[in-house]
Amino acid sequence: MKYPDGRVYSAPSSWKEVTYGNRGMDLEHEINLSNQYYLETNRAVIYKKPTPIKVSDVDYQSRGKMIRKAFFESPSTTDYNGVYRGKYIDFEAKETILKTSFPLKNIHEHQIQHMFRVLEHGGICFLIVRFQTLQETYLLPAERLQTFLKRETRSSIPYSYFQEYGYRIPDGYVPRIDYLKVIDTIYGGVF
Amino acid sequence: MKYPDGRVYSAPSSWKEVTYGNRGMDLEHEINLSNQYYLETNRAVIYKKPTPIKVSDVDYQSRGKMIRKAFFESPSTTDYNGVYRGKYIDFEAKETILKTSFPLKNIHEHQIQHMFRVLEHGGICFLIVRFQTLQETYLLPAERLQTFLKRETRSSIPYSYFQEYGYRIPDGYVPRIDYLKVIDTIYGGVF
Repeated sequence: MKYPDGRVYSAPSSWKEVTYGNRGMDLEHEINLSNQYYLETNRAVIYKKPTPIKVSDVDYQSRGKMIRKAFFESPSTTDYNGVYRGKYIDFEAKETILKTSFPLKNIHEHQIQHMFRVLEHGGICFLIVRFQTLQETYLLPAERLQTFLKRETRSSIPYSYFQEYGYRIPDGYVPRIDYLKVIDTIYGGVF
Repeated sequence: MKYPDGRVYSAPSSWKEVTYGNRGMDLEHEINLSNQYYLETNRAVIYKKPTPIKVSDVDYQSRGKMIRKAFFESPSTTDYNGVYRGKYIDFEAKETILKTSFPLKNIHEHQIQHMFRVLEHGGICFLIVRFQTLQETYLLPAERLQTFLKRETRSSIPYSYFQEYGYRIPDGYVPRIDYLKVIDTIYGGVF
């Protein structure tokens, strides 16, 4: 693979560790590698936010300030955000082992609120859902999630809804989850 | 204060705790309150990212999965980002007690790299610096930081540079740090 200017692209060593197939590699890790690829190839600047942790006891004596007591907190936003072609990009990624639907309890209520706020402010927002058992990954625009939640009272989104209103993200090698290609297809006109 | 639709605006209880003046309240806390205000008044969706922490031991027995051992990590990006009028917003905020300059060691090298990447991808990026002793807060566009770093080899940015190329952010009550007003002034044309 080459950069547009002809330089040969060399994968960072962290990618080379990955020798196993898609099966078994979790979605978060694949998205992180894809984001790293987008960064290295100067395509976009998108990061996973750190997990929110409430620190309650720190040992300042030890080297590197060791945290002795802390708790995981619920995130108030989605996990991923950044900039692509000048636009704000924001998304959440989830996996399910179910074959016929994606349970909405996988997403916190305030994360959904956050997604709708992002839409209102002109950002590009979506959900990436992997059906592990089916080995299929879909991008569902937040607009479609909104429509579903307005019309339906069901606690899960049927697989068929992803087939009809979502966009299948093909598995790749580098990047593994080329979701920006899908974004170009859906939102191409806004750039 | 009223919303545009006439509803009376009521400050969340967390704001009401703040009874002390600007003096003594730290910049991070003031920016968080301002972001909360922007969120509640539907002006923008901007959050501080959680502090990156590397967790190395978790007690699953205790309620709420207690973290027993963890370490603070250096952030690879800036602390704040989000969406305003469809554009990606990204910034770092720092304080100094010095009166004549802002030491660049306050910002990690990879944070600076991140800021320049954001610019390259069409995002709006800047630094908010408070000179505590002078009680003055400035917004410095990342473009100006870039110019400074290209021309200078000094390890700190003189106060006069902020006066000349930065934008003073007036202290307010609600919001305390109305940096979006400054953004409108500088980047108004891009919206």
